[in-house]
Amino acid sequence: MSTGRLEGKVAIITGAAGGIGTTPDRLERPRMNSINHQVRLTARPSGLPKPTDWELTTEPVPVPAAGEFVVAISHLSIDPAMRGWMNAGASYIEPVQIGAVMRAGAIGCVTASEHPGYASGDHVYGAFGVQEFARSDGAGVVKLDPSLAPLPTYLGALGATGLTAYFGLLDVARIQEGETVVVSGAAGAVGSVAGQIAKLKGCRVIGIAGGQAKCVWLVDELGFDAAIDYKSDDVRKALREQCPQGIDVYFDNVGGDILDAALTRLARGARIVICGAVSQYNATEPVRGPANYLSLLVFRASMKGMVVFDFADRYGEAAAEMAGWLAEGKLVSREHVVTGSVADFPETLLMLFNGENTGKLVLACGPQG
Amino acid sequence: MSTGRLEGKVAIITGAAGGIGTTPDRLERPRMNSINHQVRLTARPSGLPKPTDWELTTEPVPVPAAGEFVVAISHLSIDPAMRGWMNAGASYIEPVQIGAVMRAGAIGCVTASEHPGYASGDHVYGAFGVQEFARSDGAGVVKLDPSLAPLPTYLGALGATGLTAYFGLLDVARIQEGETVVVSGAAGAVGSVAGQIAKLKGCRVIGIAGGQAKCVWLVDELGFDAAIDYKSDDVRKALREQCPQGIDVYFDNVGGDILDAALTRLARGARIVICGAVSQYNATEPVRGPANYLSLLVFRASMKGMVVFDFADRYGEAAAEMAGWLAEGKLVSREHVVTGSVADFPETLLMLFNGENTGKLVLACGPQG
Repeated sequence: MSTGRLEGKVAIITGAAGGIGTTPDRLERPRMNSINHQVRLTARPSGLPKPTDWELTTEPVPVPAAGEFVVAISHLSIDPAMRGWMNAGASYIEPVQIGAVMRAGAIGCVTASEHPGYASGDHVYGAFGVQEFARSDGAGVVKLDPSLAPLPTYLGALGATGLTAYFGLLDVARIQEGETVVVSGAAGAVGSVAGQIAKLKGCRVIGIAGGQAKCVWLVDELGFDAAIDYKSDDVRKALREQCPQGIDVYFDNVGGDILDAALTRLARGARIVICGAVSQYNATEPVRGPANYLSLLVFRASMKGMVVFDFADRYGEAAAEMAGWLAEGKLVSREHVVTGSVADFPETLLMLFNGENTGKLVLACGPQG
Repeated sequence: MSTGRLEGKVAIITGAAGGIGTTPDRLERPRMNSINHQVRLTARPSGLPKPTDWELTTEPVPVPAAGEFVVAISHLSIDPAMRGWMNAGASYIEPVQIGAVMRAGAIGCVTASEHPGYASGDHVYGAFGVQEFARSDGAGVVKLDPSLAPLPTYLGALGATGLTAYFGLLDVARIQEGETVVVSGAAGAVGSVAGQIAKLKGCRVIGIAGGQAKCVWLVDELGFDAAIDYKSDDVRKALREQCPQGIDVYFDNVGGDILDAALTRLARGARIVICGAVSQYNATEPVRGPANYLSLLVFRASMKGMVVFDFADRYGEAAAEMAGWLAEGKLVSREHVVTGSVADFPETLLMLFNGENTGKLVLACGPQG
């Protein structure tokens, strides 16, 4: 195993879609680093989040108290799950409160510390939020080694999304060599890693993604056995062709019609992992349940939900194995990096729901942005 | 353990609902035993089965060939699953073909035998179909001991329905002492046994059933901790009150709104067993999937389908344990016996979907009917 710097495939895209700040209803782009620009939630969205659901606020850059440190944030993790955090009501995590800084996983560099475990210059990951600077007592914070992998990769294959794929397939679905694994949202952050892990474990892997370019990427670059373009293919028919023995494991990131199509094609004893349901997150009508759920009975199949937090005590072990695969070139981490500032967060988030990203969506922001 | 005859609680009801044969569109009641009256499927129903979906046919009473025997059927098992067997399309079992005798589990007495393993007078269970006499080579046939339990009990707690409850709770859900178990269709054949097994294993058990009489029966006669009347209670609110720590195991026989209500009240790591979905079997619109299925993710829960056939190699062991519980008075098998003839089958089947039965629905028919 090489321990040298990994060459992740990082796509750099400058500016968020659509030219921030060109229309009056957009948030003003922060221009100064002496103050801390923050994005706060001002309303619970109905459907897709609107510009008026957010507010750009400023505060003085925080000063650490004893036992604390301050981080200058350089990269924000942009995740479909964020949409769920904006809703009222109990879920696997507390909703973001109205008026609070939007929750986000982020990477940054320690700029001031009164904490014995952290020094200026340390690179760290934590739930620092959509802001330029965060104060932390170290709870839930992980130190990163930028010599081992590019920082965005710590939000991709080596981050929560990669770990979700890892534990979802290996611990929840318990994939076995020779099984047929279908992944939806396959060109997304979790799906693209999930499909590769299944290939590494000797499975036949079919990805479902939107658009021909993503499908070509899945097969040609990531080594999927086949890809189905849900925008132009008949998914049910394509699954019938691609999974003649049925689906042993379906790793679902999207819900809706695609989940229903997969349910028609299960193998006996199939396992469905419910990782997410991006097709439903912005629904203004009630979530549509899987009409074909009685296939669980017909095929003696199971459907199980997962949240990566439950595996926190094994993150280190998993990340080390994933880092090994990256170093050996067996795993490709693709990050879709948008360069901008925290003010670009609202529009960058929408890229997820428009299917504009390939791989892990990251907003590079802050002092260097 | 007593080995004497068990006093099952058998409710005897004479005649099917509504006076068979009083209107011209009803099947004619068979009156002779020299011919074999049969009920055949003539059309695939849309919604509730109609009289015109059936045909009463006659054949000579069959004569056994070498290796065969003939059974005079005395009791037909009437099951919600029958509705599924009437639909076209792949399921866990082949559909009943148009023109074929309707499939049914049944009990009867051997009247003629050219099979070395069966003699006239033997009591047997098998998939003999809705007819007065069946010819069999013994495949899938089980011999019964009428001195151990009343014959209808072999279609109830000691039959496929009781075994479904047994394996569903013990093998699929793996209930543990102290857990909260919720059973829907709790006054039905499977549900009433499931709730009692969960009580035997030290669980807190809440049943959901239709109507106050059934609810009183569940609590007063079967020892459920509580019962929710879905016809008059707010099921979601009642589950919140009755399951303050959440539902650990939900054993679902009904689907629809009640499944959705249960999904809102899961405990972390809950297991849902999908045994059936009687609320959906006669739907003329597509099955409504559980809109709250993302609770599986929130609560890290699983939903698993089961079919009792998969446990066939352990039927004997399970039935022996259940017989012990019956003998010790720890388990009550209630059969709702309608006395009539095979011609009463179509109307008797509808009782299941109207919620008219309490416990296992059985049609006592044939020569003694």
